Amino acid sequence: MTVSSADAASTERDLTAPVRIARDLIRCPSVTPEEGGALAFLAELLEGAGFEVHRVTFQTPGTPDVENLFARYGRGHPHVAFAGHTDVVPPGEETSWTHAPFSGEIADGVLYGRGAVDMKGGVAAFAAAAIDFIADAGETFPGAISFLITGDEEGPAVNGTVRLMEWCRARGERFDACIVGEPTNPQTLGDAIKVGRRGSLSGTLTVKGKQGHVAYPHLAENPVPGLLRLCAALDGLHLDDGNERFQPSNLEIVGIDTGNPAFNVIPEKVGARFNVRFNDTWTRESLARHIEAAIREAAGNTVGYELVFREDGSDSFLTNDTALIGALSAAVAAETGRQPELSTGGGTSDARFIKNYCPVVEFGLVGQTMHQIDERVALADLETLAAIYRRFLSDYFKAG
Amino acid sequence: MTVSSADAASTERDLTAPVRIARDLIRCPSVTPEEGGALAFLAELLEGAGFEVHRVTFQTPGTPDVENLFARYGRGHPHVAFAGHTDVVPPGEETSWTHAPFSGEIADGVLYGRGAVDMKGGVAAFAAAAIDFIADAGETFPGAISFLITGDEEGPAVNGTVRLMEWCRARGERFDACIVGEPTNPQTLGDAIKVGRRGSLSGTLTVKGKQGHVAYPHLAENPVPGLLRLCAALDGLHLDDGNERFQPSNLEIVGIDTGNPAFNVIPEKVGARFNVRFNDTWTRESLARHIEAAIREAAGNTVGYELVFREDGSDSFLTNDTALIGALSAAVAAETGRQPELSTGGGTSDARFIKNYCPVVEFGLVGQTMHQIDERVALADLETLAAIYRRFLSDYFKAG
Ligand SMILES: [Zn+2]
Ligand SMILES: [Zn+2]
Repeated sequence: MTVSSADAASTERDLTAPVRIARDLIRCPSVTPEEGGALAFLAELLEGAGFEVHRVTFQTPGTPDVENLFARYGRGHPHVAFAGHTDVVPPGEETSWTHAPFSGEIADGVLYGRGAVDMKGGVAAFAAAAIDFIADAGETFPGAISFLITGDEEGPAVNGTVRLMEWCRARGERFDACIVGEPTNPQTLGDAIKVGRRGSLSGTLTVKGKQGHVAYPHLAENPVPGLLRLCAALDGLHLDDGNERFQPSNLEIVGIDTGNPAFNVIPEKVGARFNVRFNDTWTRESLARHIEAAIREAAGNTVGYELVFREDGSDSFLTNDTALIGALSAAVAAETGRQPELSTGGGTSDARFIKNYCPVVEFGLVGQTMHQIDERVALADLETLAAIYRRFLSDYFKAG
Repeated sequence: MTVSSADAASTERDLTAPVRIARDLIRCPSVTPEEGGALAFLAELLEGAGFEVHRVTFQTPGTPDVENLFARYGRGHPHVAFAGHTDVVPPGEETSWTHAPFSGEIADGVLYGRGAVDMKGGVAAFAAAAIDFIADAGETFPGAISFLITGDEEGPAVNGTVRLMEWCRARGERFDACIVGEPTNPQTLGDAIKVGRRGSLSGTLTVKGKQGHVAYPHLAENPVPGLLRLCAALDGLHLDDGNERFQPSNLEIVGIDTGNPAFNVIPEKVGARFNVRFNDTWTRESLARHIEAAIREAAGNTVGYELVFREDGSDSFLTNDTALIGALSAAVAAETGRQPELSTGGGTSDARFIKNYCPVVEFGLVGQTMHQIDERVALADLETLAAIYRRFLSDYFKAG
């Protein structure tokens, strides 16, 4: 049920700040790498609240130019940053949506649209919380609050957070804590704060043989049996049992490819690709050495192979800042009545770039509809998230 | 060293019939499916020798039209057929050839050109032998000699020997024995007569899982470990130890493909392709059942798979006609001083289609340069092969 236009007019007056900001952001069609008006809207909003706003574009040959936003209020410390993105993934089949993906329609207490939870809703909640906090804190506020907003989180992530953090460092910006507003709650708002992330390591394992005709196997050398042996070793590899902070590390073979369409030709080579999500038992280097040793042992003197690890990926990290984690947990508990799990599960996020600059945690909306048709958020969740951020700011700066 | 034009003129007069015919056939650029003048040349040659010649074109939607030739001399029995092809594989990089691939140049007692051994040389040797035999046998010759020549052996083999044999049957042609003139000798003329061929069975084994993100393996189901297990079972499968007639059956996994280019996505499915070359221990059906049982056992209740056998391929066959094998072996021994091995190794040939009509064996030139740059044949080999065929015809018809 969509509200009628008469309802819409009355609703407009009644909308709370986080809902109104989220709706206006959704109406900007900011599919990566398009800015779509989202950063301009945010810049005007924050400038109006007294923030010093910088819009910075980064360029790298071979990737799209990306606009980013840095906004700061206050010049002191502690300095709390909120990190997020206004770019969104494409809407997919627009006709499959109950409400058009960039219309920001509200029905039955739910706001629909691409980015509703990932993560225009999170950006809106923090903006509403920060503006409200600043209004209350007054001229004598001794700390600082910043926004680190990228337009490249869903894209190649080359001209986004990585470059923006470098740009901040060059300007002399120092942060004491950062909250990333990605949707971290699996089921219900208050489920989980992410206090770390597993690392990621990818590699390619190739076995070379000698091409030939299947009728003359003695003149060829089939690389497949050797690869099967090495893949069985990879698949059977014990990494660790996890610990109180992290789940067990996990290796997945994501592909095996010979690229040989024929049935009567023994292929020249065959390669397997794998990815490991690993905990703080390992660094990328120690894990690569462990894998290499297992492959070497399985190969013995009989299988010639090539093992190449990719340059991308990252180490795991775990944030131990009790002031940050304590204030945020307490705010979640106070507003939701739930004690959030301190989680390190799931995939990587831009937090992996921020952790090199300051303690970072992640807390946002419920992720269930992200990247899907009919992505949506309950208005109540938007308001509760804004209240959590608002309470966190009060408590953190009071403690600091 | 290429002969000079003065030498060429004198050589021309001195060339023996098998060499001259082979050279003239090589000069016809009959790359599959082009006729290239080769069948026309052969038709004129055989008609001149008293053969009744039919040139028949077969058409199948989706494949090239193919010209074929059937030529018969004599109306009685026994009826000996010679089977072969005048089409050739492409020459590859023409500039890499010492002598242009369709020039039929002779240098140092060697004839160069695409098809020299596979198998214009074999066709030429049998044509020379048959023409000579007929001239000697005279009007009272009680048997028959036929040529079954296709232009589609190196192509899809749809409109070639298969259709030509059906066409012959429809005309009431009955053959008592057939020699296929493919290059059967690994090293030296006289090494081996092929008296049978292994069968061939191809299949595809697919394991389906559930696609998902590598960071959330509990929400996905990686099909790779299951496929690894089934492939290990395939690879470890014991088929047989061979016997006095055939080498052991052999299975090769020729490809594994997921077609998943990403490193962070668990693939939905992964498939392996395999081919078996099998001996007379098995039929296609019994072998398929054996493989299916092994896969089913390896899969247990935990791996869901799909196993599909391809329709192409063929059963093994073994020719036991002692008159045919005896006469040909004796002719080889008499002309080369070598006792040929009765082999069943190597790949398939058009003999697999002929075996349903009459006893068939294969004997031709030395295969080492077939399908390669600088394919070539020693003039002495062409002449010895013609002498072997000539002696075989005399002895076989004398005995018959
Ligand atoms: Zn996001
Ligand atoms: Zn051939």
